Amino acid sequence: MDIGTIGGILFAIGMILVGQALEGGHVGSLLQLTAAMIVFGGTIGAVMVSFPFHEFTRGIKMAGGTLTHKKSDLQKIVEQLVDLAGVARRDGVLALEQRLPELKDPFLKRAVGFIVDGVDATVARDALETEITHEFEEGAVGAKIFESMGGYAPTIGILGAVLGLIHVMENLNDPSKLGGGIATAFVATVYGVGSANLIFLPFGNKIKRKLTAEKERRILIAEGALSIQAGLNPRVLREKLLAYAGLHGLPEPKKE
Amino acid sequence: MDIGTIGGILFAIGMILVGQALEGGHVGSLLQLTAAMIVFGGTIGAVMVSFPFHEFTRGIKMAGGTLTHKKSDLQKIVEQLVDLAGVARRDGVLALEQRLPELKDPFLKRAVGFIVDGVDATVARDALETEITHEFEEGAVGAKIFESMGGYAPTIGILGAVLGLIHVMENLNDPSKLGGGIATAFVATVYGVGSANLIFLPFGNKIKRKLTAEKERRILIAEGALSIQAGLNPRVLREKLLAYAGLHGLPEPKKE
Amino acid sequence: MDIGTIGGILFAIGMILVGQALEGGHVGSLLQLTAAMIVFGGTIGAVMVSFPFHEFTRGIKMAGGTLTHKKSDLQKIVEQLVDLAGVARRDGVLALEQRLPELKDPFLKRAVGFIVDGVDATVARDALETEITHEFEEGAVGAKIFESMGGYAPTIGILGAVLGLIHVMENLNDPSKLGGGIATAFVATVYGVGSANLIFLPFGNKIKRKLTAEKERRILIAEGALSIQAGLNPRVLREKLLAYAGLHGLPEPKKE
Amino acid sequence: MDIGTIGGILFAIGMILVGQALEGGHVGSLLQLTAAMIVFGGTIGAVMVSFPFHEFTRGIKMAGGTLTHKKSDLQKIVEQLVDLAGVARRDGVLALEQRLPELKDPFLKRAVGFIVDGVDATVARDALETEITHEFEEGAVGAKIFESMGGYAPTIGILGAVLGLIHVMENLNDPSKLGGGIATAFVATVYGVGSANLIFLPFGNKIKRKLTAEKERRILIAEGALSIQAGLNPRVLREKLLAYAGLHGLPEPKKE
Amino acid sequence: MDIGTIGGILFAIGMILVGQALEGGHVGSLLQLTAAMIVFGGTIGAVMVSFPFHEFTRGIKMAGGTLTHKKSDLQKIVEQLVDLAGVARRDGVLALEQRLPELKDPFLKRAVGFIVDGVDATVARDALETEITHEFEEGAVGAKIFESMGGYAPTIGILGAVLGLIHVMENLNDPSKLGGGIATAFVATVYGVGSANLIFLPFGNKIKRKLTAEKERRILIAEGALSIQAGLNPRVLREKLLAYAGLHGLPEPKKE
Repeated sequence: MDIGTIGGILFAIGMILVGQALEGGHVGSLLQLTAAMIVFGGTIGAVMVSFPFHEFTRGIKMAGGTLTHKKSDLQKIVEQLVDLAGVARRDGVLALEQRLPELKDPFLKRAVGFIVDGVDATVARDALETEITHEFEEGAVGAKIFESMGGYAPTIGILGAVLGLIHVMENLNDPSKLGGGIATAFVATVYGVGSANLIFLPFGNKIKRKLTAEKERRILIAEGALSIQAGLNPRVLREKLLAYAGLHGLPEPKKE
Repeated sequence: MDIGTIGGILFAIGMILVGQALEGGHVGSLLQLTAAMIVFGGTIGAVMVSFPFHEFTRGIKMAGGTLTHKKSDLQKIVEQLVDLAGVARRDGVLALEQRLPELKDPFLKRAVGFIVDGVDATVARDALETEITHEFEEGAVGAKIFESMGGYAPTIGILGAVLGLIHVMENLNDPSKLGGGIATAFVATVYGVGSANLIFLPFGNKIKRKLTAEKERRILIAEGALSIQAGLNPRVLREKLLAYAGLHGLPEPKKE
Repeated sequence: MDIGTIGGILFAIGMILVGQALEGGHVGSLLQLTAAMIVFGGTIGAVMVSFPFHEFTRGIKMAGGTLTHKKSDLQKIVEQLVDLAGVARRDGVLALEQRLPELKDPFLKRAVGFIVDGVDATVARDALETEITHEFEEGAVGAKIFESMGGYAPTIGILGAVLGLIHVMENLNDPSKLGGGIATAFVATVYGVGSANLIFLPFGNKIKRKLTAEKERRILIAEGALSIQAGLNPRVLREKLLAYAGLHGLPEPKKE
Repeated sequence: MDIGTIGGILFAIGMILVGQALEGGHVGSLLQLTAAMIVFGGTIGAVMVSFPFHEFTRGIKMAGGTLTHKKSDLQKIVEQLVDLAGVARRDGVLALEQRLPELKDPFLKRAVGFIVDGVDATVARDALETEITHEFEEGAVGAKIFESMGGYAPTIGILGAVLGLIHVMENLNDPSKLGGGIATAFVATVYGVGSANLIFLPFGNKIKRKLTAEKERRILIAEGALSIQAGLNPRVLREKLLAYAGLHGLPEPKKE
Repeated sequence: MDIGTIGGILFAIGMILVGQALEGGHVGSLLQLTAAMIVFGGTIGAVMVSFPFHEFTRGIKMAGGTLTHKKSDLQKIVEQLVDLAGVARRDGVLALEQRLPELKDPFLKRAVGFIVDGVDATVARDALETEITHEFEEGAVGAKIFESMGGYAPTIGILGAVLGLIHVMENLNDPSKLGGGIATAFVATVYGVGSANLIFLPFGNKIKRKLTAEKERRILIAEGALSIQAGLNPRVLREKLLAYAGLHGLPEPKKE
């Protein structure tokens, strides 16, 4: 589990509420159904207009991905590709077919499949790169949906505050209600600014970071597979892939 | 119909008005002709100055496109192109001429027409890519017009508020009218911020998303047609187009 | 004449002033020499520091271009280029020399001149593209000057407002002048925000749109001329240029 | 001398102060040592943290360059290069060695030196382009330092205002000092917004414009020298360089 | 030690506090635990959600790098590479193996190692450039974490201020506490705006500048090594590397 996502939100909201409580503020005065309706209703509506519906639902689902943590397996992939390069050098690329069932990662499987099928190198590179870009951009829409919510929420929060102030201004003749009315109006600002800065924008950014990591992982696989097809020396391949993986300084495995 | 566009606007405005009503505010106090004249008159005028007139009218017309929903037919296009590739392989590219009348999509028709006419591959690629880019950029101007309105509306809303406050300040000697005057001034802000965040910016974004989808669809067609011309194996073409369409994992059709 | 530029400004300012008048505000209270001096003096000064003097004067002159309207002649240019391609095919590129005097557009003349002079294709492409880019970027500086004014004006308007408020604050002991003083201070904000959103930013954008249209027109001419030099078939050239001009669907002229 | 830099600042500040004086404000109330310490001390400190020290000092020194004006010599350079191309054509590239002492511009000298030394064209292009890019980016850091100051100054001005308001709020019990205290607080905003918009941002922009002009001048020289090395015809070279210099329409010199 | 980092922060905060003190403000009133909890707790939490945990910790660690100063050794590297080029020309590239132990810089060692190992030039360039890009982008994430904090801190500071104002508004019936309450609320703004502009954003920028310097240093090494492999003349190499290092005008060393 990605402790940063849950932990970060709890830490941020906790610190803010404790700070507020120490100051003597009542947390209860921050709970207002109408402000929540205005800010979150407006934000969700604006995003529904902004994106086609299937992109909207996909983006919301991607929020779940920010909660899970996948351990980096770049080193394992490098060794796997160097191993496959050794097989290809010794026994020819067709010998890779027997290794296909061992390969768990579907993208690696498809890349090695291209080699075994004898697909032309240019076509293989084009197909692999297109898939990487496509997958990344499709995911990036998910990140954009959260960034979009992070952009709408504070302005709709201000909209809610102005609506509240209009209401207050119309009842200026009862000054005793003045302060409470303004306080209520400000809660919409708190919801808008708070949700944007503690949830929406951070979620959008984390989705993007995870997509970037996955993209780099796939570029590593694609470069490895295409280099195997080109008959690159396993030793040189290892050096090259370590550069791609950003793993220089890694000791060589003993078995080689 | 794209339920997100209409549904999103209704949802957002509904939630905001219900929230406001629950708070005890009168929706009637948000209806002000003069504020609307200032904000929307100013915004429309600013956009008319910003863009040549034919771009302005085209952009406004494109708003209609955000209301319609076109089901994705990428899978059908892939199968169609693989089918045409089979024909070209079996019977030569000239045999594609008989299939031209079946092709409904005008862009697909033009692309296959290039193959039949024996247009040089470089020229064909150049013409198809230029048309894709041109169409996209022309549409993007429509999106920009809405983004532009989304940029002008809040500042002109603030302009309206300041104008209202100037009026209020000049009549400070009658405090009983003070609150109402300020409330009126704030309505311009509500119109500006609200229209920008619930209509203009979301419309601009949705236009852009739909243009992007159409652009990807055309790139798929262009890549397919050019690969057919280059004599690519239908099986490899299918794999390649699935990557372009982002449809990996799709089962192969039975008939092949 | 470009009715959008003049019409848009009149429409925007008209709607705002009528709205303001309906609300009971006096337009006269918006006329303040000192606020105008601060906002426009400060803005012009800031732009004079920001750009070399010859760029500043050129940018100001370009404002005139936003008032004129040039009808698109892309279709005529396509037919003219296809016609020249026919001549070159029939009678050789040297035969184009006789057509040179007919060509009114100086850029088209220069491009065809390169063909007649037998300038190497790479050199011709380089020179034509460099001229297009250069002309565009030089004009873009004009657009940037207006964008720059649109950026400085609102902040200097706020500067004027703060200066006015400082003055008001120092005379708090005479409350009767308070409201009027604040109103005066706010006029600077109105000038800054209004001029930026109704004049400066829209002018900058329209200059950019007109430059883009001219750039596309020249790219069409350059591509056409270079294709003629390369001996492209007039029929294929027509198809290609229609893609560049974004004119697909145009019926073929009868004479061919 | 670049009259725009000094003239623009004097004009802007003059108009603002005269406007303020006409309104009845005392210029003296804008002179506050403590506000200046907070705003400029904070801004300079922030920029010192933001950039390595040698970049900071170089950026400050570049401000001097915005005061000087260098007349454009593009036309002279074009004729000089065309002249050298004639020499190279007639007498061979080695004959250029005798012209080296005449060349005043160090970059032109180095470029022609490469031709005389018989440096490979690819290496020469790489070295010249690298030097152009390097020089430009190094200078761009100077522009960034002023943009950075223009970004920090207004926010630190607001920081100063808030600090002043905190001080005022703590002494609310003495209302007679209220106005003066707030006025003092606002001076920090005036300093921050004013220095950013009238000095820092304009300086940054002018440095960038001057760097761009110098970059274009050097690209002209590099393209000219490399074309001479490639043995381009002087007439065609002239046409090409005029495109690079944006000088089309210039009459041909009589002597040729 | 990088005196700019520590010196700049001390200078900025010192000037601000002294200015505040001269104005009669109590520095003590700026020390508030609850405001600090809200602003920094919220900011740190938001960044923890925004970035994967290992990136967050790496970014925080990179702050240390802004305090250290590494003297530029570009000139020494140029001479070292020219020297190696001489060896390679005289005795063949294999002779470089004896010089490997002398090379302290691990990147230079790896680059020269590629030459000695006879790695194909395209593969070597790819591996070296990939490593440079990878290292730079990994470091850039560290800079982004500080920029991210600089983006969250002021808005969370405003959140803190609004929370404080809500608290104040609810207690309007006790005007004597009004001023102090508002002052307390403003301290959160001071913390947010101050930390962003004096620490977070400047740190992010300095990290980026240092990464850029290191990137340029490595590009110099990579270009040098690849040129040695290509057998470039040491004299021409020197000229080329001086362009890359931006060191033109440097006198030639005596020994050559």
